[in-house]
Amino acid sequence: MSENQTEIATLGEFGLIKKLTESVKLKNASSLKGVGDDAAVLDYQDKLQLVTTDLLLEGIHFDLTYVPLKHLGYKAAVVNFSDIYAMNGTPKQITVSIGVSKRFTVEHIQQLYEGINLACEVYGVDLVGGDTSASITGLIISITCIGEGEKGKIVYRDGAKENDLICVSGDLGAAYMGLQLLERERVASAGMKDFNPDFSGKEYILERQLKPEARKDIIEILAKKGILPTAMMDISDGLSSELLHICTQSHTGCRIYEERIPIDYQTAVMASELNMNLVTAALNGGEDYELLFTVPLEMHEKLQETDGIRIIGHITKPELGCALITRDGTEMELRAQGWNAFNN
Amino acid sequence: MSENQTEIATLGEFGLIKKLTESVKLKNASSLKGVGDDAAVLDYQDKLQLVTTDLLLEGIHFDLTYVPLKHLGYKAAVVNFSDIYAMNGTPKQITVSIGVSKRFTVEHIQQLYEGINLACEVYGVDLVGGDTSASITGLIISITCIGEGEKGKIVYRDGAKENDLICVSGDLGAAYMGLQLLERERVASAGMKDFNPDFSGKEYILERQLKPEARKDIIEILAKKGILPTAMMDISDGLSSELLHICTQSHTGCRIYEERIPIDYQTAVMASELNMNLVTAALNGGEDYELLFTVPLEMHEKLQETDGIRIIGHITKPELGCALITRDGTEMELRAQGWNAFNN
Repeated sequence: MSENQTEIATLGEFGLIKKLTESVKLKNASSLKGVGDDAAVLDYQDKLQLVTTDLLLEGIHFDLTYVPLKHLGYKAAVVNFSDIYAMNGTPKQITVSIGVSKRFTVEHIQQLYEGINLACEVYGVDLVGGDTSASITGLIISITCIGEGEKGKIVYRDGAKENDLICVSGDLGAAYMGLQLLERERVASAGMKDFNPDFSGKEYILERQLKPEARKDIIEILAKKGILPTAMMDISDGLSSELLHICTQSHTGCRIYEERIPIDYQTAVMASELNMNLVTAALNGGEDYELLFTVPLEMHEKLQETDGIRIIGHITKPELGCALITRDGTEMELRAQGWNAFNN
Repeated sequence: MSENQTEIATLGEFGLIKKLTESVKLKNASSLKGVGDDAAVLDYQDKLQLVTTDLLLEGIHFDLTYVPLKHLGYKAAVVNFSDIYAMNGTPKQITVSIGVSKRFTVEHIQQLYEGINLACEVYGVDLVGGDTSASITGLIISITCIGEGEKGKIVYRDGAKENDLICVSGDLGAAYMGLQLLERERVASAGMKDFNPDFSGKEYILERQLKPEARKDIIEILAKKGILPTAMMDISDGLSSELLHICTQSHTGCRIYEERIPIDYQTAVMASELNMNLVTAALNGGEDYELLFTVPLEMHEKLQETDGIRIIGHITKPELGCALITRDGTEMELRAQGWNAFNN
């Protein structure tokens, strides 16, 4: 253990929880009581509650050789917020459970919580509870997020209708190319001391991988414009996989167009450097946490004047299946090649 | 992999989730939408929500050499329900996240879910969401439970007042002695094939360890009798530890009496066989999931006629500290020697 690092055993579970949560101040009216009792107490009055949960495991979902703990905490919280926005809701509370092996110190866990707390600050969410435990191997993070939704305005996956427009926010494939870059540098640096990776000109794709944001702004814009999507998801596993979920649950088919898929130039440059197929990265990369949604055709004009949203195709009858139209007009069936933890 | 066992990779994450949740039927009016979208949707109308979460890790919280997976699932759910009852609430929904290493098959995970589903059945709770992932080592279970509470009837830890009576439900120390018994048999059976442990006459303490129940019945009895506790917790870490939490948060002291601590005879017999101190087991053993609560002195008669509740002492001014009065009248300061995962 290096200097200025505190073993967790010296604080114990209750000491650690106290240290991690003593600065927490509840911001939301619905958070009546946070950390410190058997359960948190919430008051949602006449609003609906949305509940989502995510489990992140070291060695499966993240690699601490290149992910700073503060970024990891931020991302772990944000991916849950993203699920709530994807229901057209607003995240309000999270609980955070962590399992920590002996190689982590109190200071490490504080860094993780700095990221979690920052995400809560930025998105107006309260940390209201959790659990901490020793683990035998590595770091385990389990976050549950509770959010608020309005009756009649929750957007599910199963509401897409024939002729609806298919839209995505932001751009796709950047988080995946950021991961490829980090992996390349990790391999290159193996065994070297003081290795200084050169990330200049690649800041965007790195940030997309290490510090993604949830699209709160898009949800707010849609509400302001009076656009209520018919179906919506966030893109965590990849565009193809998520779009197939929407079409399966909505009993529809779809057509999307290669030329309309939004891709940032850093993503394109990186794919070219690594000799990877750019469209595959955009379709299957995952972890972009952009919103994928469908809207009735008559919203076409309202959407076209909206920055940060791209119409990439439309919903069809189920018999037509789900396909991508390439630049040369070929139809390629969409397949879910998104990330599967069980095959890694 | 033995016969009739299915590798999880053959199903993938979505296939596994489908298999595990396809039989789930929502029972509660507050569960609008369960598994299958980015988030579950709940409608609590004018009720308060209670939220609690627990992380259970193989090798830290459970040992699969003697804990059947179905029992583990049951217990993992019940310990969360217990936290909701300890707020004087009713559990309504859970989310279940699991991390699973390669040595587990689909059938193993189905056994785990059988236990979780049984607990949900018994306690009237809906499974509404979760996450599944591969893990590098062992089994990880993270459960979050959401429950309902009525305004003005939530019971916190900080409401105990001087002269309040201190009560516990059921009996204490049995779960701990059950664990000692299982550990003894595990050591005795090491390396032996077809070892048949003799558990006759010890069924109660085994069940207390392997298949604990949450005291829904006690909460219902208290409500029926019009007894609203001033403070309440469930006993997961041990009576001493929990009572110190109540006294610290309520700014009081307490006196409890050794002769009044409820102990089952199987617990006593096991402690004697293993040459362990019985009172220590009852004070610090933990995992009994009984309720510890305080009530105003004037409830004395109402409580005395109530089966399954024992008055074990009273709340004092803070200056008097927290102490156990032994059978010979000696005062011993209470210390939290409850289980600490970080010291194991």
